[in-house]
Amino acid sequence: MNGAESLVRTLVKGGVEVCFANPGTSEMHFVGALDRVEGMRCVLGLFEGVCSGAADGYYRMTDKPASTLLHLGPGLANAAANLHNAKKAGSGVVNIVGEHALYHIKYDTPLTADIEGIARPFSHWVKTSPTSKTVAGDGALAIQAANVAPGQIATLILPADTAWGEAEGVADTPAAPAAEKPSKEAVVAAAKALKKPNSMLFIGGRALRARGLELAGKIAAKTGCKVQGAGGTARIERGAGRIPVLRLHFVIEQAQAQLKGTQQMVLCGAKAPFAFFAYPGKPSVLTPDGCETTVLCPVEGDILGSLEALAMELDAMNEKAAGVAQPSRPERPTGKFTLDGLGQALGATMPEGAIVVDESVTTGRGFFPFSAGAPPHDWLNNMGGSIGFGAPVAVGAAVACPDRKVICMIGDGSSMYTIQSLWTMARENLDVCVMIFSNRSYNILYSQLADVGAANPGPRAIDMLTLDRPTLQFTDLAKGMGVAAGKATNLEELTKQLTYAMSHKGPYLIDVIM
Amino acid sequence: MNGAESLVRTLVKGGVEVCFANPGTSEMHFVGALDRVEGMRCVLGLFEGVCSGAADGYYRMTDKPASTLLHLGPGLANAAANLHNAKKAGSGVVNIVGEHALYHIKYDTPLTADIEGIARPFSHWVKTSPTSKTVAGDGALAIQAANVAPGQIATLILPADTAWGEAEGVADTPAAPAAEKPSKEAVVAAAKALKKPNSMLFIGGRALRARGLELAGKIAAKTGCKVQGAGGTARIERGAGRIPVLRLHFVIEQAQAQLKGTQQMVLCGAKAPFAFFAYPGKPSVLTPDGCETTVLCPVEGDILGSLEALAMELDAMNEKAAGVAQPSRPERPTGKFTLDGLGQALGATMPEGAIVVDESVTTGRGFFPFSAGAPPHDWLNNMGGSIGFGAPVAVGAAVACPDRKVICMIGDGSSMYTIQSLWTMARENLDVCVMIFSNRSYNILYSQLADVGAANPGPRAIDMLTLDRPTLQFTDLAKGMGVAAGKATNLEELTKQLTYAMSHKGPYLIDVIM
Repeated sequence: MNGAESLVRTLVKGGVEVCFANPGTSEMHFVGALDRVEGMRCVLGLFEGVCSGAADGYYRMTDKPASTLLHLGPGLANAAANLHNAKKAGSGVVNIVGEHALYHIKYDTPLTADIEGIARPFSHWVKTSPTSKTVAGDGALAIQAANVAPGQIATLILPADTAWGEAEGVADTPAAPAAEKPSKEAVVAAAKALKKPNSMLFIGGRALRARGLELAGKIAAKTGCKVQGAGGTARIERGAGRIPVLRLHFVIEQAQAQLKGTQQMVLCGAKAPFAFFAYPGKPSVLTPDGCETTVLCPVEGDILGSLEALAMELDAMNEKAAGVAQPSRPERPTGKFTLDGLGQALGATMPEGAIVVDESVTTGRGFFPFSAGAPPHDWLNNMGGSIGFGAPVAVGAAVACPDRKVICMIGDGSSMYTIQSLWTMARENLDVCVMIFSNRSYNILYSQLADVGAANPGPRAIDMLTLDRPTLQFTDLAKGMGVAAGKATNLEELTKQLTYAMSHKGPYLIDVIM
Repeated sequence: MNGAESLVRTLVKGGVEVCFANPGTSEMHFVGALDRVEGMRCVLGLFEGVCSGAADGYYRMTDKPASTLLHLGPGLANAAANLHNAKKAGSGVVNIVGEHALYHIKYDTPLTADIEGIARPFSHWVKTSPTSKTVAGDGALAIQAANVAPGQIATLILPADTAWGEAEGVADTPAAPAAEKPSKEAVVAAAKALKKPNSMLFIGGRALRARGLELAGKIAAKTGCKVQGAGGTARIERGAGRIPVLRLHFVIEQAQAQLKGTQQMVLCGAKAPFAFFAYPGKPSVLTPDGCETTVLCPVEGDILGSLEALAMELDAMNEKAAGVAQPSRPERPTGKFTLDGLGQALGATMPEGAIVVDESVTTGRGFFPFSAGAPPHDWLNNMGGSIGFGAPVAVGAAVACPDRKVICMIGDGSSMYTIQSLWTMARENLDVCVMIFSNRSYNILYSQLADVGAANPGPRAIDMLTLDRPTLQFTDLAKGMGVAAGKATNLEELTKQLTYAMSHKGPYLIDVIM
C-alpha cells in the first residue's frame, strides 16, 4: 500500500466519505487509489472554489467533514475564498493539497509555492507530511482537527513522494476534545441577566437547530426575554413547529432597531453584534449603550449543553416554548416582481425538508417571514461574506442530503464567481433549484457607495457596479453546462417555474429577471 | 482630497493607467475617486482571477504595471492563482486590496482575514498603509516595487479609513533600481564556454524579444552554439524576420532529447532546466551529465545588456544572425483534426501583429514550427503552471494593444477556471479570438497518471480526468456572456471560422470539437 492509499483508507475509516476534487499531476496517486478503496465518493469540480464550498455545505448538513483534493498552492488559493466562508461558519473540512516530491521543491519549478503559507490564513491546522509512513497518521490528525467544535479547517499537504512511497498502514482517528461545557457561574449569571427587564438571548451556531431553538423558546417563555439570531447563521432549522428567529440585519440602522432597548444581552454560540463593515461616522459595536453583556457559551463551546443548563437553572424545561410557528403558507403571489413577492413565491412553493442556500444579498433580506410557517426546512447563510458561496454550498448540501430539495438563491453578481458549480450539479444529477436574482448590478454597492460617503457616483464609478453591458443570459450559461433552465419575468411565471422545479428531481435554474 | 483619491492620482502619475477591478464596499472610495481623476481606465472583471491574469497580460505587452482592485482577503485569494503565474513570469502588478477600517479589524467580522498573510506567498512587496496621509507614498513605493526587473508583484492594502480620511497630496514614484549588468568575468566565462564544442545558449525573459533573439542569432553565427528557449516563456517575439527558438518540452524525455549532447550551457535570463514535476525514477535536473553551466545573466539581471556584452566580447555584433525565419505559411489544412493540422490552421490564418496567448496544454505543444514564418507576432505562455491563465491574460493583452488581434488558445478544462473572462471581452469589445480545444478531458492527466506510476486507472480515477458528462457547450457559455461563437468539427470548418474571426473586430469564440 502506498502513502496515498493509506491516506484514502484512513479518511474513510475516520468517517470522511466524500472528496470534492480538482486534482492534477501531484494528486494522481490519490486518484489512483480511489479504485482500490471502497467508501469514498469523489465529486469533480471544474474550479476549486466549487470543491471547498461544497465541503462547507456538506458539513453544515451532516456535521461530518468532507475532504477536498487540490492541486498545489494555486489550487489551494482558488479554494481559499470558500474556505474562508467555511472557517467563519465553523464547518469542518479536510483539505488534501498535493505538493511536489520533497526533493523536487528546491528547484523552484513553475508550480512551486509556499503552500503552508497559503494555507495558514484559511486553516486552523496545517501540516506537510514528511514521509510516506507518516501520511496516514497525519491524515488522522487532520480529521481530528476538522472535528474540533464547531468544526475547523485542516489542511494536509501531501508531497508526491510521500504519496507514491510505501506506507505502514492505516491510522485510527483520535476523538476530538469535547466542546467545553459552561461553568456554573456562567449559567447562573446568564439566568440572572435574562430575568431582568429588556433582556435578549443572542444566539448562533447549533443554538439555531430545532432543539436549540426549542430550548431558547422555553427560556423566553419563562423569562420574557427576546430571542435574536446573529447576523451570520450557518444553518437555521425553521418552519412550522419550530421557533422562528430573525437574523440580525446587515444594515446598521436596522440592526440597531432590532437591538434597541436591550439592557441585558446573553450570548450563546454567537459573538456580540458588530457591524459587517465600518462606515464613516457609524459605530462598529451595535450593542446599545449601557447594555450589559453576559457570555453563556462562546462559539466553540457546548452550545446545546449550555442552553439545557440554562433552561434547567431557570426551571424552564417544562415550559411550553414561546412563539412556535404554526403551519401557514402565503398565497401564490401575482404581478410584477417585488421583494416581498419573491419571498411569498418561495414560501408558497418550498417542499418539506427543503434546504435553502441563501446568497440573495440585497434581494432576500426580508424573505424570512414568508416561510416561517412553511413545512420544516433548513436555511443556510454566508458567514464569511465572500461571494461565490451559494452554488458550491448547494452542491455540498445536495450530496449530503440526496432525498431533499435544495433551493439555491443567488444574486447575479455573486453567482458568477463560482458558476462552474452548475456543471457538477448536472454531472451528479443533484436535486438543486438555482434561482438567480438578475438585477444586473452589484446592487449592494449602490447603497454602500453612499454609506461610505462616496455618494453621487459618476459614470466611471457606476460602471464598476453594473452588470448590464452585456446582460448575462443565465439560461444559456446553464445550457452550456448541461443544466435545464427557464426564465421568469413576473411572479406568475416564477411560481410556475418553482412549482415545476419542486416536482422534478435534478438541477434546474430559474433566471429571475428583475 | 481623500486617501483613495491621492492613491489614484499617484498611480496615474506613476504610469499605472489601467485598473482591472472587482471592488466591494471597502473599495468604494477608490471607485468614487475614478470620476474625479483623469487617466485611469478601469476594467471590471466578474471574478478576481480575471483581473490578476489581465494585469499579467498587460505587463507582458507593455512592460508597464497595471493595478488590480480587490475586495479584502477573499478577493485577493481569488486573484492569487494568476498572481502566482504573473510572479513566475516576471510581470509587474500593483494590487490594491481593500481592508476594513483599522479600528474595525479587532471585531473579527465576517470578512476579516489576515490579508498580509494571504498576500505574502504571491507578492514580492506587501504593505498595509497605516493612515490616509501615507497612502500616496505607499502607493508610489508599490509602483516602484512592481517596476523592479523583470517585474514584481506589489500588494498595497488599503484600510477603508485610510481611503476616506484626508490625504496630504500626490506622491512621486521613485525609479526602480536598474537591473544589474553582468560582471566582466561572467561575460568572458560565457564567451569561453560558447566557443567550446556542443555549447548551448539557454535563454528566457527579454532575451526572447526580437532584439535579444537577434543578438543570440549573432552569437550562434559566431560560435556555432545552439540557442534554446526555456520551458516557460513569458513572451516570445516570433515570425518572419526573427530568430526562431523552441521552448524546452514539458515531457522529460523530449526535453532531454533537446538538451542531449550539450557540454556547455550558458544561462541568460533563465534558470537551469528542471523537470516541471517530479516522477518516480525520473530526474529533476535535466542538464545532461557532465555538462558545465555558466550563468551569464540571472532572471532578474540586465538580459539584453548581457547579450550585447557577450556579443561584443565575441566580436559578433556584425555577424549576420543565424537562422532568421523566412516568410512562409502552411497550406490551409483539410480533413479531420490532427494536432499538426491545428498548428497549420493557426499558421495559415494568423494576421501580422497577432498576440497568441497559449494555454493549449497537450494540444498545442507542437504548434511552433507551423507559425515560424508567419507574419511577425508575439507568443505568450504560462510560466506558473496554474491553469485558468489564458483568457484573463488575453483580456490584458487586448487592453494593452487595441490595434492587434489576440488569439487565445485554451484547453477545455483550463478554460473553465476563469471562463468569466468572456464577459469582460464582450463588455470592452476586446479584439480576441478564443479557441477552445474541446477534448472533453483533463487530457494531460492521462499521461501523468502513467508517469507517476499510477497506470491502468479504474472507473473512479477516470471519472476525475474526464469532462464528457455532461459535455460543455462553449458556444452557449459564450452566448450567455455576450460573445459571438461558432463550432468547428474539422479543419475546413476551423480555418473558415478563423478566417472570419481574423477579419472581424471584437471577441469571437471557436469551439474546436476534437
